[in-house]
Amino acid sequence: MAQRRYAVVGTGAIGGYYGACLQRAGFEVHFLLRSDYDWVREQGLRIDSVYGDFVLSQVNAYVDPAAMPQCDGVIIALKSTQNAQLVQILPPLIGPHTTIVLLQNGLGCETAIASQFPDNPLLGGLCFVCANKVGPGHIRHLDYQAITLGQYAPDYVPCGITPELEAIAQDFAAAKIEIHPDGHLLQSRWRKLVWNIPYNGLSVILDATTDALMAHPPTKQLVTEIMQEVQQGAAAWDCEIADAFIEQMLTHTEQMTPYLTSMKLDAQQGRPLEHEAIVGEPWRWAAARGVDLPRIGMIYRQLAFCDRLSQA
Amino acid sequence: MAQRRYAVVGTGAIGGYYGACLQRAGFEVHFLLRSDYDWVREQGLRIDSVYGDFVLSQVNAYVDPAAMPQCDGVIIALKSTQNAQLVQILPPLIGPHTTIVLLQNGLGCETAIASQFPDNPLLGGLCFVCANKVGPGHIRHLDYQAITLGQYAPDYVPCGITPELEAIAQDFAAAKIEIHPDGHLLQSRWRKLVWNIPYNGLSVILDATTDALMAHPPTKQLVTEIMQEVQQGAAAWDCEIADAFIEQMLTHTEQMTPYLTSMKLDAQQGRPLEHEAIVGEPWRWAAARGVDLPRIGMIYRQLAFCDRLSQA
Repeated sequence: MAQRRYAVVGTGAIGGYYGACLQRAGFEVHFLLRSDYDWVREQGLRIDSVYGDFVLSQVNAYVDPAAMPQCDGVIIALKSTQNAQLVQILPPLIGPHTTIVLLQNGLGCETAIASQFPDNPLLGGLCFVCANKVGPGHIRHLDYQAITLGQYAPDYVPCGITPELEAIAQDFAAAKIEIHPDGHLLQSRWRKLVWNIPYNGLSVILDATTDALMAHPPTKQLVTEIMQEVQQGAAAWDCEIADAFIEQMLTHTEQMTPYLTSMKLDAQQGRPLEHEAIVGEPWRWAAARGVDLPRIGMIYRQLAFCDRLSQA
Repeated sequence: MAQRRYAVVGTGAIGGYYGACLQRAGFEVHFLLRSDYDWVREQGLRIDSVYGDFVLSQVNAYVDPAAMPQCDGVIIALKSTQNAQLVQILPPLIGPHTTIVLLQNGLGCETAIASQFPDNPLLGGLCFVCANKVGPGHIRHLDYQAITLGQYAPDYVPCGITPELEAIAQDFAAAKIEIHPDGHLLQSRWRKLVWNIPYNGLSVILDATTDALMAHPPTKQLVTEIMQEVQQGAAAWDCEIADAFIEQMLTHTEQMTPYLTSMKLDAQQGRPLEHEAIVGEPWRWAAARGVDLPRIGMIYRQLAFCDRLSQA
């Protein structure tokens, strides 16, 4: 089989970084952009990375998805708040054998895509990466880069390590991206929420960095209780999160350098918050199984209020 | 019996307003001040009130409680965050028959005073008043002025309408202050918390006025759920709060003009927050009876974080 051709939908920090890694490794990559289109078509992409800076002076840049070719792999790296656009964006890119790779946090984002393309393999990816877009076509990659990647099946039934998952994982590994193939996507999504819900939520609501939240005993306690609610929500969906995992997240975050979460950056820049996918959906999923998560429900409502303000 | 002599400990908006009303009605009143002492000794007190402005050009002003006379009634109107000072302030003012009147919100503030002066009648008062200190010795009274007044007995056992309560209520009524004598102080304190916990808490945490909280459905829902937790805490202490009372608080607040809560004003001005008396104590009291109030616990921890910042 010839080398797979990739599309990147949403060339922000995540899509830009991973797409550039793939192109650098020799893959043909097609980038869909919006505000940065003119700049990137002329200047390319610049990645300042802890693993070594690089520039791609020539990239295939598009503002219209209809102009893009069908691809073997389509990487979706939009913010989840923009997912309604996918219905229009995706059709030109998807052929009968295209694998769709959704790099987003939260729960439930696969469902709409799977109903639009029920016969295509769909992978969900959880990125453990610190990267920001600092200017047009200019991405600063600060730390980490691993992706946990799992295949989606209807109702998130665990489906093990499939050939389609292995193929994509192999390409990413060739691009020097650390991939953790995972047979239980839903469980990985819940696990990622252990960190995302408390730190993204409280950093926006309390206007705080992660180190400030951990340095103050009442908020450290609150973070812990919220993590335990995520654990309860996961258990309601037969997903296991060990106590030791929570301990590890707490310790790890205490040892991190002060960090502005992605949701805090969105709030600062007046962008819509991803509180539906990251907080509202897990809260509703748990409720659907009869499990009340009051602190997560409260974070959700407080974020909805902050979201209204940040977009005012 | 000769007319009773009063002391006011803490001449801010509350103490200044009610003390001035008593003096205007002919009572002898002695005011303990701190930062405003020099000004008030020379210029007196000025009350701009919706019920009619007035000035007291001569007031008995003190900065040292030891210089004050024993009084028949001692009105404590400090912020609850300053209550540790009362051990030193009160002894010169209290004789064997002095009635102590504590005008503070929250739970449990009577206990320390009662252990210091176990033989003196002690009343707790809940003020329904909008008043701010806008300058030295200058109080702006915007709306309402009623006080619900109840006698304290050890463990907050209800003790009905006592003669000591009636005597103080009579004096306040003579000063045209609307008094609601109450035989069940603890129940009145819990009822006041139905408003105070959600609105004070969320206004600080979300940097919001009451009307903004009510205009946004997710926060209105959250306010309602927090009120229901107060209801559960009260029930654990055999204090009844009717569903209709919660409805009434919601409707009333929606109809109010936009209001900056007292805790929000404290936060804006970098003063310590009264989150222990108003949120932490009710939460701990409920826990002591085996009732978990997760949203109120979360408000408490978020406020503790905000308090740290406001004093930084």
